[in-house]
Order: sequence, then C-alpha cells, then structure tokens
Amino acid sequence: MKKLFPLVTTDIALFTIQDRSLRVLMVRRANEPEFGKWALPGGILNPGDDAHLDATAQRVLSGKTGVDVPFLKQVATFSGAARDPRGWSLSVLYYALLPSDQVHAVAGRATDAIEWRDAYAPGSGLAFDHADLVDAALAMLRDKVSRAALPLHLMPARFTLTELQQTCESILGRPLDKSVFRRRLKDELCIEQLPGEFVYGAQRPAQLYRAVNGFRF
Amino acid sequence: MKKLFPLVTTDIALFTIQDRSLRVLMVRRANEPEFGKWALPGGILNPGDDAHLDATAQRVLSGKTGVDVPFLKQVATFSGAARDPRGWSLSVLYYALLPSDQVHAVAGRATDAIEWRDAYAPGSGLAFDHADLVDAALAMLRDKVSRAALPLHLMPARFTLTELQQTCESILGRPLDKSVFRRRLKDELCIEQLPGEFVYGAQRPAQLYRAVNGFRF
Repeated sequence: MKKLFPLVTTDIALFTIQDRSLRVLMVRRANEPEFGKWALPGGILNPGDDAHLDATAQRVLSGKTGVDVPFLKQVATFSGAARDPRGWSLSVLYYALLPSDQVHAVAGRATDAIEWRDAYAPGSGLAFDHADLVDAALAMLRDKVSRAALPLHLMPARFTLTELQQTCESILGRPLDKSVFRRRLKDELCIEQLPGEFVYGAQRPAQLYRAVNGFRF
Repeated sequence: MKKLFPLVTTDIALFTIQDRSLRVLMVRRANEPEFGKWALPGGILNPGDDAHLDATAQRVLSGKTGVDVPFLKQVATFSGAARDPRGWSLSVLYYALLPSDQVHAVAGRATDAIEWRDAYAPGSGLAFDHADLVDAALAMLRDKVSRAALPLHLMPARFTLTELQQTCESILGRPLDKSVFRRRLKDELCIEQLPGEFVYGAQRPAQLYRAVNGFRF
C-alpha cells in the first residue's frame, strides 16, 4: 500500500570535546532498516506526547543517552522518497552541545552501542544520509563560532582561557591567534573570573573562569 | 479521532523589490481554517508527487503564483500541536527571491486575492503563526546580505550599481556607505558591465550591469 503520510523523525548531532578534539555521538542501529550501521541518535515524532519538534528532539536524545542537554537547536530538515527504505520520510535535524565534563554521564541503552567519533571524520558507511546530516550540523556550529560566538555549552564548569581557545580551534579546525582571541574576550560579558582560583602547572598559574548564567549562543 | 500523523506543509516567503522597498507576497485564505486571513502561500506535501520538500515548495509556489522562481531555500521548520486547528502540524518554511522586473508575472489563482506587503510590516492578524514565519525568513535574508552576499536574484536583467545598493539597503533597513559598497564590488565576479549600455538621466550616465551566469547567493 502506498503510504500517504511521511515518516517524521528527529535526529540529533550531539557534540562534545574530548582530548582537544570535537566529537559527535554515534549509535549503532539495533533494528532494521540499516541494522548494525552507525547513525546519529534519532527517533519518531509522537504527536500525542510532543508539544513540538524541539520536544521530540529532547525526548529522543534523553531516551537514547540518559542526559538532558543544555543546548539543542534546529539545523535543517532533510526529506524525500529515497532516503529511508520505509518510505517517504522527513528528518528534522538538531544539534546539541554537551559540556566536556559531562561525557561520563552519557550511556547508550542496553541494546545500543555508542561511540564518540571525530566530528570531522565520523566514519564511512553511516546509515541513511547521516553523513550529510553530520556535515550540516558541523557547518552550523562552525559558522557560529567563526562569527565570534563562544561555545560555552561545551566547556566544563571551570575552565581556563587557553581551554576555551582550544575548544574554538577544535570546532574551526584551525589555530587562532592568542593575542587576538584574548583581546576579544576583554569585553565579553558571558564569562567571569573565579576569584583566587587558578590551575597550577608547568607554566605560570592560569586563572579559572566560568560561564555567566543566561549566556547566549 | 486523535490523528497519529502530523499535517506536513511548506510555506514560502516570496520576496521582491517594489518602489525601493522589500516586499513579501501574501495570499488571502479562501478556505477554513483561518478563512479570509492573509497568509504566506503554502500547501500540503504530496508524497506521491514530490521527490523531496524542495519540490513541494516549488510546486506549491508555482501553483499559487504562476511563476517558477530562480531562488528558493529552506529557512526552518515550525511545528506543534497548537499552531493549526486541524491538529498537529509541521510547516517547512522556505524563502524565495523574485527579480523586480518579473513582479508583473505573478498572479493569484481565481479564488485567491494576493498582495505584496512591506516585508518589515506585513500586517497584523496574519493566519496561523505566519507573522513568525515572515520574521524568520526576513532574518535569514538580512543575515546573508549583511555578510556581503549580493541579492542578485532580486535584480532586473540590467541594473545600475546604485540600484543594487538600494536593494541591499531595502533588505538591511539601513543606508550603506557608497564608497565602501563600490570598493567591495571591485573584485566581485558575480556581476559584469554591459559594454556601452548606460542609463541617462539628470545625473551623469550610469553604467548598466548584469548578473553573471551561475552566481551564488
């Protein structure tokens, strides 16, 4: 029978920072179609439960990873007759940011293997058109950071300015000039010093900062 | 009966320039719900006909206006249980650009009144959440032009640099510095002079230009 209604799903590109590298969460599919292939976490819209698609994305991501993320935003909608063997389908893609000190809280369900992959090289043979979805989400994140938005949702509770710069560099895929970066932060209202808190190491002590409540990305 | 499937539509914000002002096309609804209210042209996905949602948007816009537009791009997806009285619905919003010398080709169907409204003030009491949709489409167009993209899809076949600047100003809602604008166009590969073609008026003759085939926006 010809389906008259499209399959409506949300997929989420969840990014974090590990080992100074931008990572994206992939889940191994435990069901047909595309059984065994790696995909972004995703799930089907439930009109009875979900007030809107943002709620679908939150519910799906929380169900697949066990965490509620502080930042989740729509990227674009992918659609067509050919992208899913079950029929005409439509996926509303979101991207989400997870602070690097909360990676340990992410756990796949019993049936799902999960992996944090290099966002710039998430692997070949991904399910459906998910390679395109990762690209689109990464492009939106890069675009924001290249326009001087600070990806504070990826930072741990306390961080140094060097760590913040490294996070921006991981997203942009290129080094930033330290003095230009520091100068830009001078008037930044989204971060504040933690008085008397420093990281001590081989170098001189590094001031610790935190994100100010209600900062925008 | 509770609907298990959402209503999937596309709506299109079609922009053009009239009298140096950015306009958006509105259509008066000839059916319930929201009968008689003004709305963006839109229509329902037909999985049997449409290869993907871009095709839905092209088909819908062409059916409602009689023109095929040279530029059409997805903005965002609006969704929820409350935005349409028919039930859970999802609208994928597009924006489209129509050259100012093709406005005459746009005609509503017999049942539909159409109006070109000021894009910055499209009127109160629009149908559904279409005021939000116009805002989102306008924001995307402004953002592009503020990042130095040239809105050549809005220009007539032949235009002066002053007309191009005025179009950018209509979109941005603010004046641009002429010498800065001209300097930026110096290395621009998207436009070319039409040799020997000028506009003669009260001022000194103004060189005419055209968009180069295959320019990107």
